[in-house]
Amino acid sequence: MASGTVTAFDLSEYAAARRALIEQALESYLKESSPRPLWESMRYSVLSGGKRFRALLCLATAEAVENSDVRQGPIERAMSCACAIEMVHAMSLIHDDLPCMDNDDLRRGKPTNHRVYGEALALLAGDGLLALANEILIRKTPSDVAAATILDLAAELSRATGPDGMVGGQVEDCIATGLMSAGKGSTNAGEDKLSLLESIHKKKTGALLRFSAWSGARLMEASQPVLNMLVRYGDILGIAFQIADDLLDTTGNIQTLGKTPGKDLASGKVTWVTVYGVEGARKALADMEEEGNDVLRQTGFRETAIAPLSALLGYAIHRSN
Amino acid sequence: MASGTVTAFDLSEYAAARRALIEQALESYLKESSPRPLWESMRYSVLSGGKRFRALLCLATAEAVENSDVRQGPIERAMSCACAIEMVHAMSLIHDDLPCMDNDDLRRGKPTNHRVYGEALALLAGDGLLALANEILIRKTPSDVAAATILDLAAELSRATGPDGMVGGQVEDCIATGLMSAGKGSTNAGEDKLSLLESIHKKKTGALLRFSAWSGARLMEASQPVLNMLVRYGDILGIAFQIADDLLDTTGNIQTLGKTPGKDLASGKVTWVTVYGVEGARKALADMEEEGNDVLRQTGFRETAIAPLSALLGYAIHRSN
Repeated sequence: MASGTVTAFDLSEYAAARRALIEQALESYLKESSPRPLWESMRYSVLSGGKRFRALLCLATAEAVENSDVRQGPIERAMSCACAIEMVHAMSLIHDDLPCMDNDDLRRGKPTNHRVYGEALALLAGDGLLALANEILIRKTPSDVAAATILDLAAELSRATGPDGMVGGQVEDCIATGLMSAGKGSTNAGEDKLSLLESIHKKKTGALLRFSAWSGARLMEASQPVLNMLVRYGDILGIAFQIADDLLDTTGNIQTLGKTPGKDLASGKVTWVTVYGVEGARKALADMEEEGNDVLRQTGFRETAIAPLSALLGYAIHRSN
Repeated sequence: MASGTVTAFDLSEYAAARRALIEQALESYLKESSPRPLWESMRYSVLSGGKRFRALLCLATAEAVENSDVRQGPIERAMSCACAIEMVHAMSLIHDDLPCMDNDDLRRGKPTNHRVYGEALALLAGDGLLALANEILIRKTPSDVAAATILDLAAELSRATGPDGMVGGQVEDCIATGLMSAGKGSTNAGEDKLSLLESIHKKKTGALLRFSAWSGARLMEASQPVLNMLVRYGDILGIAFQIADDLLDTTGNIQTLGKTPGKDLASGKVTWVTVYGVEGARKALADMEEEGNDVLRQTGFRETAIAPLSALLGYAIHRSN
C-alpha cells in the first residue's frame, strides 16, 4: 500500500506487519477439512491475497483506543473479528461474481470462484463463509471480552451484512442498473441520482467498512462519543472508497486492477463519475479526506494512533487498485 | 399435522396454537421495508405457510424444561430462536432450488423463489435471511436470558448452518449425486453407501433439527445431561425425517407433497430407499421411533411434556408431505 498524503508514517510497513498476522489467523480458521471441495473453494477466495483493508481498519481502531482496564493486546483481542469481516467480504465477492449477478470471470487477477469450482460450490462456499464468520467471531474472540460486547459485535456484523446493509445495497444497485425491477409503487424513480447513489453505497460497501472501523474500538470498550466519531470516520471512508472505485473503473487498467475496467460505463451504470465527471469525483474525494482527518483529530487519540487511520483513509482515496 | 401413533395427545391442536404465534412473530420480524423487492422475496419464502416443524420442536423442548429460576414463559423466551431457525431453513430451500443446484420449479405447491423473483434476487434473499436470522436471535431474545446463553445459541446456529452442518451436508450430497467432484485424494469413493448417507443427512437436514431440539432446552438453562439427551433425540429425529422424505419421494404424489416426486430415483441419487428398499426403510423408521421415545423417557420430563415431543417424532416418521 502506498499513500499520497501522509509522509511521516509508513503505511506499507505498518500494513505488512499486520497483514502477516491476519493471513496466519485466517489460515488457522480455514484449515482444510471435510467436505474437502467446500473448504478448498472457501480457502481459494479468502486466502487469495486480498489487501485486507477491512481487517486492517478493525485492528487499527482497536490499537487506537487506550483502555487501562483491558489487559490484552488490541491485535490479539480484535483478530477474530478482523478475520470474520474478511470472510464476509470474500462471501460477498463470490456471490457478486456469479453469473446471475455480475457474471465476472476475473477477481484479483485470478479466475473467479465459480469459474474454478462451478456455480453450485461457489454458492455454497459463500453461504458457508457467512455462517463460519459468525461462529468464529463468537467462539474465537478471547474469553475475557464481555459476552455482551461479543453479542453486540455479532449482531452488528449481521446487520452490516443483511437487508439493511450489504445485501440490501446490492439489491438497490441491481435496481438502479435495471437488473431488477423496483417493484410496485416504488418511489426510486423520482429520487435524484445522488441520493440514490449515496443510499446504495452506504449499504453495499459502506456498512461493512463502517462496521470495521467501529468494531475494533468496540472490542476495546471505547466510550460512546469515540465510537460515534469512528462510525462517522467509517462512513466517510466508505463513500470515499466507492468514489475511488468508480474513478478506477474509468481511469484504471486491467494489470493494476486485476479485473476488467470500463464495465460500469459499458453497462450504463450510474456511478459517481457519470454523475459528477472525473474532476467532480476527485474534488469530492479531496473534501472527504479533509473531513475524515478532522473527525480523527476530534477523537482525542494520540498522534501515533491517528496516523494509521489517516493513512488508511488516504489509501482508500489514492489507491491504484 | 396428523400422527399415526399417539392417541391421547392431539398434535394438530397443539401445533395449530403455536403455529399461529410463530406466524405472528415471523410477520413482525419481516415487516416490509426498503429495498422492497428484497423484503418481498424474503417474505414470500418465509411466510408461505410451511409446517414450522423446526420452530415447533424448539418451542416444545423449551416447554418441556421445568426451571423455577426462569420466570418468563418458555414460548416467549424461545420465539426469536424458533423464528431464526425458520429463516435459516427458508434460506436453505431458496438456495437449494436455484438452477445451479436442484433447479426446482415448485416448492410447497407454489413456484420457487427464483421462478417468481429471478435468480439474483433469490440468491440475495437467501443471504439476507441468513444474516437476519442471526441478528434476530441476538437482538430479539428477551434481555433476561444470559448473554453467554445467547452467544452459545448464535454460535451453534451458525455451526449447524455452515461447513460442518447444512452447507457441508449439501456439498456431500452434491458429491454423492455426481453434481460435484470429490476432489483430489478423496476417500469418499471407498466409503460404504450407508455411512456416506448417514454423514450427508446428519449434516444436511440433521444439524438444524438437532439445533432445534437442543436450543429450546438451552434457552431454559436445562442441565447438561438433559441437553445431551435432547441432542440424541434430535439426531434420531433428523435421520428419521430424512428416511421419511426418501420414502415420500418414492410413494408420495404431487398433490400432497407440493413438489415433484420421483426426482431422486430419476436422478440416480443414493437414498435410504435405494440402499434398503421400501420395506427396509420402513423397518428403520419403526426402530428409530422406539429409540427416540426411549430417550425421551430418560429425560425425566413429566408425561405432558414428553407427549408433544413424542408426537413430533411420530409426525416426522408418519407424515404424508
